[in-house]
Amino acid sequence: MRLSRFLLPTLKETPSEAEIVSHRLMLRAGMIRQHASGIYNWLPLGLRVLRKIEQVVREEQDATGAQEILMPTIQSADLWRESGRYDDYGKEMLRIVDRHERDMLYGPTHEEVATDVFRKNVKSYRALPQNLYQIQWKFRDEVRPRFGVMRGREFLMKDNYSFDLTYEGARHSYNKMFVAYLRTFARLGLKAIPMAADTGPIGGKLSHEFIILADTGESAVFCHRDLLDKPAPENVDYDSDLQPLVDSWTSLYAATDEMHRPDHGVPEGDLVSARGIEVGHIFHFGTKYSAPMGATVTAPDGSSQAVFMGSYGIGVSRLVAGIIEASHDDNGIIWPDGVAPFDIGVINLKVGDAATDGVCADLYGRLRAAGKDVLFDDTDDRAGAKFATMDLIGLPWQVIAGPKGVAKGMVELKERATGERHELSIDSALAKLLG
Amino acid sequence: MRLSRFLLPTLKETPSEAEIVSHRLMLRAGMIRQHASGIYNWLPLGLRVLRKIEQVVREEQDATGAQEILMPTIQSADLWRESGRYDDYGKEMLRIVDRHERDMLYGPTHEEVATDVFRKNVKSYRALPQNLYQIQWKFRDEVRPRFGVMRGREFLMKDNYSFDLTYEGARHSYNKMFVAYLRTFARLGLKAIPMAADTGPIGGKLSHEFIILADTGESAVFCHRDLLDKPAPENVDYDSDLQPLVDSWTSLYAATDEMHRPDHGVPEGDLVSARGIEVGHIFHFGTKYSAPMGATVTAPDGSSQAVFMGSYGIGVSRLVAGIIEASHDDNGIIWPDGVAPFDIGVINLKVGDAATDGVCADLYGRLRAAGKDVLFDDTDDRAGAKFATMDLIGLPWQVIAGPKGVAKGMVELKERATGERHELSIDSALAKLLG
Repeated sequence: MRLSRFLLPTLKETPSEAEIVSHRLMLRAGMIRQHASGIYNWLPLGLRVLRKIEQVVREEQDATGAQEILMPTIQSADLWRESGRYDDYGKEMLRIVDRHERDMLYGPTHEEVATDVFRKNVKSYRALPQNLYQIQWKFRDEVRPRFGVMRGREFLMKDNYSFDLTYEGARHSYNKMFVAYLRTFARLGLKAIPMAADTGPIGGKLSHEFIILADTGESAVFCHRDLLDKPAPENVDYDSDLQPLVDSWTSLYAATDEMHRPDHGVPEGDLVSARGIEVGHIFHFGTKYSAPMGATVTAPDGSSQAVFMGSYGIGVSRLVAGIIEASHDDNGIIWPDGVAPFDIGVINLKVGDAATDGVCADLYGRLRAAGKDVLFDDTDDRAGAKFATMDLIGLPWQVIAGPKGVAKGMVELKERATGERHELSIDSALAKLLG
Repeated sequence: MRLSRFLLPTLKETPSEAEIVSHRLMLRAGMIRQHASGIYNWLPLGLRVLRKIEQVVREEQDATGAQEILMPTIQSADLWRESGRYDDYGKEMLRIVDRHERDMLYGPTHEEVATDVFRKNVKSYRALPQNLYQIQWKFRDEVRPRFGVMRGREFLMKDNYSFDLTYEGARHSYNKMFVAYLRTFARLGLKAIPMAADTGPIGGKLSHEFIILADTGESAVFCHRDLLDKPAPENVDYDSDLQPLVDSWTSLYAATDEMHRPDHGVPEGDLVSARGIEVGHIFHFGTKYSAPMGATVTAPDGSSQAVFMGSYGIGVSRLVAGIIEASHDDNGIIWPDGVAPFDIGVINLKVGDAATDGVCADLYGRLRAAGKDVLFDDTDDRAGAKFATMDLIGLPWQVIAGPKGVAKGMVELKERATGERHELSIDSALAKLLG
């Protein structure tokens, strides 16, 4: 993409309305613009990141055998009356009356709709387990939306709903998501720690929040130091017994503020006390929805049984901000490779200089031909502004070409994360970037 | 994908509520399920088609240099008051009041929001032209939703908004979309004909509907016979003058019912009278929104000028139904290659027979390794049911393996569109499918 044709309205000034660094940087980098309180437009740079995160989430869900569907944003209130939540849900639910005076709502979550899809289309235990997921916009009418897309009103989530005949089956479905989440967040360049979460009236222990540590986190969290370096699982066979793997994580203490207890038993030197941002939540809730809504299957013995369910959420739009909170410096964003809006930025320091133009066009063409996403700064801005913009938007690599270097057949290669710059021959730079 | 793990709730009976063939087939093939009037759940098979169409649309937009953004579904009423449309728009607009008593709405279209994005982020003629597109859900509260996703309330559209300094520039932006639409629909396996459409108070001739011909079409259309065979343009240079190419289409008579006039001048034998389905609409509307909303740029002479705009829509979810209307037979859907939910279906006629199981697993593995999307019917249904399901869901190719053929090293290859079946060696079948 040529920057001269790309809508990238960066801001030099720090927007006064932004309280946290991710919100400031997303505005300054031209990723988002507020439409109304808690509601955002995603500009080209921001949307590219959102889609990359979405794709990582999708691939890891597909690997577990979960199936992607898409449920509507506008839902009938009737289903929520069946589950009993219509009256209980507070003002966060955006309630709507349609032209025929029917009560509708903009889905803040999809348990009811997913349960309805299941009960209408699956009748026998033989079709179990099922795990249906979607990546869909939701709306929660927060009383005080803040922190940009970190706590917006219209937000993108990946949400799954699993359906099993037995508790044991449901626990396996839960474990699959536990492992898939570890892998997903690792691929996003994040260190997300599963922490025991409240199960409320459901009871049991099958509820975990996945928390990333960041100074600007919304709440205090506590965990055993060993969790910080524990690598995400690789080469997972999701049909195998995942319990030992899950236990290897849950046996190490980790708790959010509400769940933190004095008798945690972690030696003082091993207890990490930090602030965290919730980016995922997995929860087994048994027959909470299936029983009242009649989501039953025929069991092997011919009886009709309400299915055991769980739901599993990842805040996709929130993750854009979460990744920035975890990965930035004074100059701007530092994107992890897997979610960067472009892999490489090519900077032409002297547009109009034939030799430099030629080298840049050649680099741009060859990098793209090799399958790289490249942003080519072909504008006539001055060098300092170009450097500042490229650092601000945080692409992993920059290739900088100016007349002096080009005369010697050299360009500069800069790694955004370390700030290291090296002068290299053009071929060496290409080899390094494509190696 | 193994069918035994795929949620494909096909129906043997024709659903009574479905009036047109695409709606019937989408329900029978387990692609969609109604959630509420005009609001649908997309099940795995349907969502795969929707995403494939979306991707074709995206690629052809990107080729023109248009930039993808994403605007919110929930919009502030204030912008619509600025454009003057808030009070004019009828009951099709889903109006919402949020918890702070602010008037909001679920966007039925995005001219106002796009104009707002533009005016806040583009200030100079030097950044023109701009063409911003999104693929986003919209809501129109139709008084009588019908025909499934053909006229639903919550529907997916690709919509663009172009911004130019001059009318001539705007006409070039319009022509780009005209050509991109021809290419898009051709890639979707459709013969879409651009037909002059009403420009209302805007005047001029820059308004075309793209119509596919189908017996079940919603309205009567008329066109010159030569348009039916006119090939879509290839190898387009979008920076070149596209007017001659556009003229080669618009010089042939084509009009919807409302625009049809007796003095069309087409010899009787050359006039096609048919029924059509609108799948796209492109429209230049000058400064209709930019003037009242103050979407201006600094012109080369330093003056402030309202930009010339156009909008361009493709009904993405409607296209799923439109393609089925244009491509089906008594047995079910016949997907064009580019949008088929899977490329190939592999049918195991005798699950449990070791030799047949082995051949099927081998075929499934090798086809997938070659990058094909494969649906593998590994269920223990009887052969007749398997054939019926595979025909119903309309994958372009079927590979059928049973014990008798396998004993001879043979499988059957069936082409869905023609119904032709050939017995081939396994390697020949693979060569044919991967060739």
